[in-house]
Amino acid sequence: MSELVKNAAGRMVPTEVNGVPQTPYQGVGRFQPAGRKASASIARCSDYPANGDKRVGSLREALEKCGLRSGMTISSHHHFRNGDLVMNQVFDACAVMGLQDLVWFPSASFPCHEPAIAHQEAGVIKRVEGSLNGPLGAYASHGHMRGEAVLRSHGGRWQAVQDGEVHIDVAVLAAPTADAFGNATGDRGPSACGSLNFGLVDSLHADKVIVVTDNLVPFPCVPWQIQGNNVDFVVELDKIGDPEKIISGTTVLTRSPDRLLIAELTAKFMRATRFYREGFSMQAGAGGTALAATIFLKDFMKADGVKSRFMRGGSTKYLVEILEEGLTDYILDGQTFDLDGVRSMRENPNHVATSPFTSYNWHGKGNFASLVDFVVLGATEVDVDFNANVVTHSDGLMLHGIGGWQNCLAANVTILPIPSFRDRIPVLVDAVTTLCGPGELIDVVVTERGIAINPRRQDLLDDVAGKGLPIRPLAEIKAEVEGIVGGKPDKPALGDEVVGVVKWVDGTVLDAIRRVPE
Amino acid sequence: MSELVKNAAGRMVPTEVNGVPQTPYQGVGRFQPAGRKASASIARCSDYPANGDKRVGSLREALEKCGLRSGMTISSHHHFRNGDLVMNQVFDACAVMGLQDLVWFPSASFPCHEPAIAHQEAGVIKRVEGSLNGPLGAYASHGHMRGEAVLRSHGGRWQAVQDGEVHIDVAVLAAPTADAFGNATGDRGPSACGSLNFGLVDSLHADKVIVVTDNLVPFPCVPWQIQGNNVDFVVELDKIGDPEKIISGTTVLTRSPDRLLIAELTAKFMRATRFYREGFSMQAGAGGTALAATIFLKDFMKADGVKSRFMRGGSTKYLVEILEEGLTDYILDGQTFDLDGVRSMRENPNHVATSPFTSYNWHGKGNFASLVDFVVLGATEVDVDFNANVVTHSDGLMLHGIGGWQNCLAANVTILPIPSFRDRIPVLVDAVTTLCGPGELIDVVVTERGIAINPRRQDLLDDVAGKGLPIRPLAEIKAEVEGIVGGKPDKPALGDEVVGVVKWVDGTVLDAIRRVPE
Repeated sequence: MSELVKNAAGRMVPTEVNGVPQTPYQGVGRFQPAGRKASASIARCSDYPANGDKRVGSLREALEKCGLRSGMTISSHHHFRNGDLVMNQVFDACAVMGLQDLVWFPSASFPCHEPAIAHQEAGVIKRVEGSLNGPLGAYASHGHMRGEAVLRSHGGRWQAVQDGEVHIDVAVLAAPTADAFGNATGDRGPSACGSLNFGLVDSLHADKVIVVTDNLVPFPCVPWQIQGNNVDFVVELDKIGDPEKIISGTTVLTRSPDRLLIAELTAKFMRATRFYREGFSMQAGAGGTALAATIFLKDFMKADGVKSRFMRGGSTKYLVEILEEGLTDYILDGQTFDLDGVRSMRENPNHVATSPFTSYNWHGKGNFASLVDFVVLGATEVDVDFNANVVTHSDGLMLHGIGGWQNCLAANVTILPIPSFRDRIPVLVDAVTTLCGPGELIDVVVTERGIAINPRRQDLLDDVAGKGLPIRPLAEIKAEVEGIVGGKPDKPALGDEVVGVVKWVDGTVLDAIRRVPE
Repeated sequence: MSELVKNAAGRMVPTEVNGVPQTPYQGVGRFQPAGRKASASIARCSDYPANGDKRVGSLREALEKCGLRSGMTISSHHHFRNGDLVMNQVFDACAVMGLQDLVWFPSASFPCHEPAIAHQEAGVIKRVEGSLNGPLGAYASHGHMRGEAVLRSHGGRWQAVQDGEVHIDVAVLAAPTADAFGNATGDRGPSACGSLNFGLVDSLHADKVIVVTDNLVPFPCVPWQIQGNNVDFVVELDKIGDPEKIISGTTVLTRSPDRLLIAELTAKFMRATRFYREGFSMQAGAGGTALAATIFLKDFMKADGVKSRFMRGGSTKYLVEILEEGLTDYILDGQTFDLDGVRSMRENPNHVATSPFTSYNWHGKGNFASLVDFVVLGATEVDVDFNANVVTHSDGLMLHGIGGWQNCLAANVTILPIPSFRDRIPVLVDAVTTLCGPGELIDVVVTERGIAINPRRQDLLDDVAGKGLPIRPLAEIKAEVEGIVGGKPDKPALGDEVVGVVKWVDGTVLDAIRRVPE
């Protein structure tokens, strides 16, 4: 194990991860990058078919023509979520090809990718570098992965590829619609998922790019979310995704009375601040409480005659209704969560697909995240200094990806609407198991027992004073919960071994994740 | 003067241009590039305003904040054509700042930029590297510019920046509509010009990027043809372009009986080939003869019930009519030439803005140009081996840019509809004054005296045989013209001095341009 050092957040982090030297987290906005962006090798048209037909007969043929060798890095996007039918086939093909020690660099993995565990056991895959949702996260948490997990935000993944921290040898991009030249879109076709922009950086930086589709159309495939000019080969399969699982089942409004109360308090809080005004902007996650908060706020907007300039998605039918009812000018959409979102993106020019570059990349000339007035996010744990955890459970298992969560903390007002306990385990803790977001960036925690405002935000404290909202210190809410459940939660029993790290948006190491004994 | 060597086209070209070693042209598709693309330096959000407002008070302030120094390279796009009101102000500001020896790297310069001659005389501008239309071309042709002219195609400009042959220090991008974050579009606003994509590569690769607009809108400016995430500063001016001159006056249908005959023969020729079929594709220049050929072809398409899959623009009202009448599925548009084109691009999702990257870049994984069935282009001279000239007049003066001309030669069938003489000077010559396109890529020359097919294209000769078209050898047409005008044209009296070069699409040197004595 590499040496551990204490970073600017007070967390002990390794100085080397998977053999690569690391920079410990230095504080918000403190790390100064140097040098130039990484770039792809220079291609030439005469090495590609003049008629633009880049189709080959199978995934295996495409992988072979890409020159894939043992030890290389294969990337993929996660727009198909738990309905992906491509990547398991890719690694099956790699196994048949006799390849070993591959690094899989997905933007996220899902329970459907559990076969990647068998490929790790067999040595085909050495390690997975990307968000680990479900069984692959548990596998890594228990110390079975050969190498450390590296958890990044959506913006952090772009940053890592852009800055050359991760070099992609072969990108495999599943595409609901594509042409033989490799132009591809996610907004139509039987496996429609909305945008493909989590795979955009892969298409720009990988040495070789394979587009895989089950809906080939004559050139040109419009829009071209992925540009064929960056694509080497096109593979047709009968079916690349399971539509029911592509469209996430998580976008269901909460019916829990406590969660509805939290959602309503969240909306009332936003309404009470100076930032709720004509032309404001907002982003909410796709969880049931955040969705409900959006709906409460929508009612306020109608009642108050206040219109938003833009809403950021993850888009759902609720956000689409806000657009279609004229309550916002634009949806700026990072990913679509249901078929209404897909339809709207396809048909409405004011429903715009964004990429992690425009939205989240910290190593750009600004990004959209800091232009958002309100962002409403979840968390698994929050401490009294507003530091928050989003990747590990209270048992220490890494079961969630960071998503855009870290990036969104740049918003004007960051709000975490969370229950004060889950399954009788307090969510408010003395110290988060894993630090994902520095407390200085988290402004408000809304629970069913009251609203806690970060003391750094005197402006917000001033705005809501005397407006009848249950404003309370976070420590007071925490003590109340501990009284109810009978004390502080048990600390998870973790091993010493570091099995993963959480990167900050600038590529520095924010925290280490320890092994969970089985 | 640097050494001259004979390249694969038999032309004597310099081995060094503006102090940089060159690769002589090696033949079509022969040059093998090496290495990785150039890239911009890594930025970070904390160096930009968190509220996204990148506005500064003046062009001069923006240039100063960009750290512009003597000897640096400033780039610009030419979507405003002869109506640009920005770049003269930029160089006036540079003069006031006391800067010297700047290199101006426009995608093209126009007669409106004649003040750049005075700035060259005063030493503010050292040289102009880009298409030279009009007085700046004459100035360079007469040997007054300090350094050689470098004439590139649209695709070649992208290739040169992408491959690192040209490094842009500061890009100044005029934008008909923009937000304070730097997102910008050309498809709306009082100076609307259509797309801004000739400036796209500048925005991606320049160290610093300034967006200049006279129509600031609240964030987000949608669409964002230029992404604010690549922009450093935004400058508001009262007026950035002269709309009447932005919209080119050259898109007037020819009324000349000879030109109309040529246009009709061109359309009849296309119709007679195997490539005229359901789903075919076509690109035509914006000159009067090419436009007329498109209209003749449209009538054939209607009569034959044949629909095109896509038409490439330069778009005009004639192309928009073809789209709106359902005779093509898509317009893939490199630049808009009139307000109908601008409106269609803004409103019709099947009228798609393309960039030199998607359309023309030879150092990509294919490009759109080679997927086009018919391309109809102009020329100033053609020799009996079908080699063609497009940048110099018969007097040797470089007065035209290459535009997309070289890139379009990759099409399936390249047709040059040209008069056999102009002002009693034959267009068909023994040897072109300047070689811009190798004859092996030029398939057909259509004149008012007959149609010449390149003997390499037996398929075309077969297709049109016996169909009543006036197919004749090029040499025969040439001899007939010489008989009429009284002999071959005089060779221009040129000096020995090389004042410029023509690049091929791969960055190699295709030809040298000699000084024209005054």
